[in-house]
Amino acid sequence: MRLISFRAKGDDRFGCQRDDGIVDLTGRMGGARTLRELLAADGVAEARAFAAGAAADFAIGDCELLPVIPDPAKIICLGLNYRGHAEEVGKPLPAKPVVFHRHAQTLVAHGAPILKPIVSDKFDYEGELAVVLGKRGGHIPAERALEHVAGYCCFNEASVRDWQKHSHLYGMGKNFRATGAIGPWLVTADEIPDPQALELTTRLNGEEVQRVGISDLIFSIPELIAYVSQAIDWLPGDILVTGTPSGVGLFRDPPVFLKQGDRVDVEISQIGVLSNPVVNEAA
Amino acid sequence: MRLISFRAKGDDRFGCQRDDGIVDLTGRMGGARTLRELLAADGVAEARAFAAGAAADFAIGDCELLPVIPDPAKIICLGLNYRGHAEEVGKPLPAKPVVFHRHAQTLVAHGAPILKPIVSDKFDYEGELAVVLGKRGGHIPAERALEHVAGYCCFNEASVRDWQKHSHLYGMGKNFRATGAIGPWLVTADEIPDPQALELTTRLNGEEVQRVGISDLIFSIPELIAYVSQAIDWLPGDILVTGTPSGVGLFRDPPVFLKQGDRVDVEISQIGVLSNPVVNEAA
Repeated sequence: MRLISFRAKGDDRFGCQRDDGIVDLTGRMGGARTLRELLAADGVAEARAFAAGAAADFAIGDCELLPVIPDPAKIICLGLNYRGHAEEVGKPLPAKPVVFHRHAQTLVAHGAPILKPIVSDKFDYEGELAVVLGKRGGHIPAERALEHVAGYCCFNEASVRDWQKHSHLYGMGKNFRATGAIGPWLVTADEIPDPQALELTTRLNGEEVQRVGISDLIFSIPELIAYVSQAIDWLPGDILVTGTPSGVGLFRDPPVFLKQGDRVDVEISQIGVLSNPVVNEAA
Repeated sequence: MRLISFRAKGDDRFGCQRDDGIVDLTGRMGGARTLRELLAADGVAEARAFAAGAAADFAIGDCELLPVIPDPAKIICLGLNYRGHAEEVGKPLPAKPVVFHRHAQTLVAHGAPILKPIVSDKFDYEGELAVVLGKRGGHIPAERALEHVAGYCCFNEASVRDWQKHSHLYGMGKNFRATGAIGPWLVTADEIPDPQALELTTRLNGEEVQRVGISDLIFSIPELIAYVSQAIDWLPGDILVTGTPSGVGLFRDPPVFLKQGDRVDVEISQIGVLSNPVVNEAA
């Protein structure tokens, strides 16, 4: 099932996207008004049953997509989590997960523009697999971690390379306005029993720039869920962004940075294509 | 005026704390149900006028304090922002602000326990001044930045030192459960025309361990607000945590780490004392 958040007839809603249209689930699954609330109420199975017997409420063209989860409590991201990317950056393979954090305010939906900042010309793509957590949990053993997954999305973790180097931390470089694209939808975990089998491709203006199998992750999805959960509880709707492979613009020869009019596609097998145009931040 | 968020009679509320009790402001200032909503509605002046003519609704002892802003959209923190602390860490003075991020889920109120993690014995205090933003804004010039400040709080940015070193980033070290103490209240900005004049003291079990004048900040509050706002808009209720001075436990000789039964007080002149016991995370 493909779950989305969207705006239609002036209201923020969530629902199930099918080829024939969108089934509105807002307020129909217990009291859940948002996709995050549906996950918190463990309502995915009920939503699947409802959508199977329901007609579409909206044509896809009548809806404006929102970020899949517009209001996650946490977005936890990984750096240097593919061997090829660690090598192109010139860093040793990490002994522990290289965790950083993104604010929900930076999220943008499939199809919406990502913004090239006014203050930087070093704006770069990073195609990644995002995992949406479905269940609260702390100190989760890795062997049970996938039970906490609600589903999977594509993510473009667009980064501002010069600001990322302002200090020994990534600083604001991963938290510029409208730089975290997520979508096109959440594919529920029942349809992806083995996320290691997925393959990710990033295209810049139609040309392939990144390709990797998710099985190449240095720290696997269960390991990452377990690691973070030692520090803090995962909450329903939280997003784990698992890291980008080699091929980012910064390390191309010559370097390639995003400019107005570009389009970045992040495609993951069994999920779909997240596509976003690049637009200059308004002065 | 001292603004707080609190729980009383089973509900989450916000109000004004006076010596004679708490004036409940929930739902009385337009539709604002939370302190963050009051700030977003620019309702502080109205709240001040209302509280001046109102009797207290609750005895202080009948209320459970919540984090001053329980649900900020962003908590943006500074590292190495006092010369003495940069020196004790052995890092050069930063050329740009050393920004990192904290999740709202880590916040705890004045009086509530901060949790020594199960997975670490390197739990440390950091006394800091926190600035609460009152007004949305991007690309804010430094000379107008203080107009965006709603008020000030004390903050204990408690840190897990071994996890902070798991990678070249701070990783989860600044984002453990129940490690971000904020309080005891928000003192509105009208009462603190010059935050540079404030003085901060941290005490561990009553013994002074940190003391600094806020005027010693390497990057001042206006500079920090302006810098971050180039990357992302500040929103009402956002929290800027300005950095800790020298004297943290990690660099004492011998090092001192927090253990169950300890108490950390962060006192800032013109604000008050934020006090939290240390308790072991439940196994």
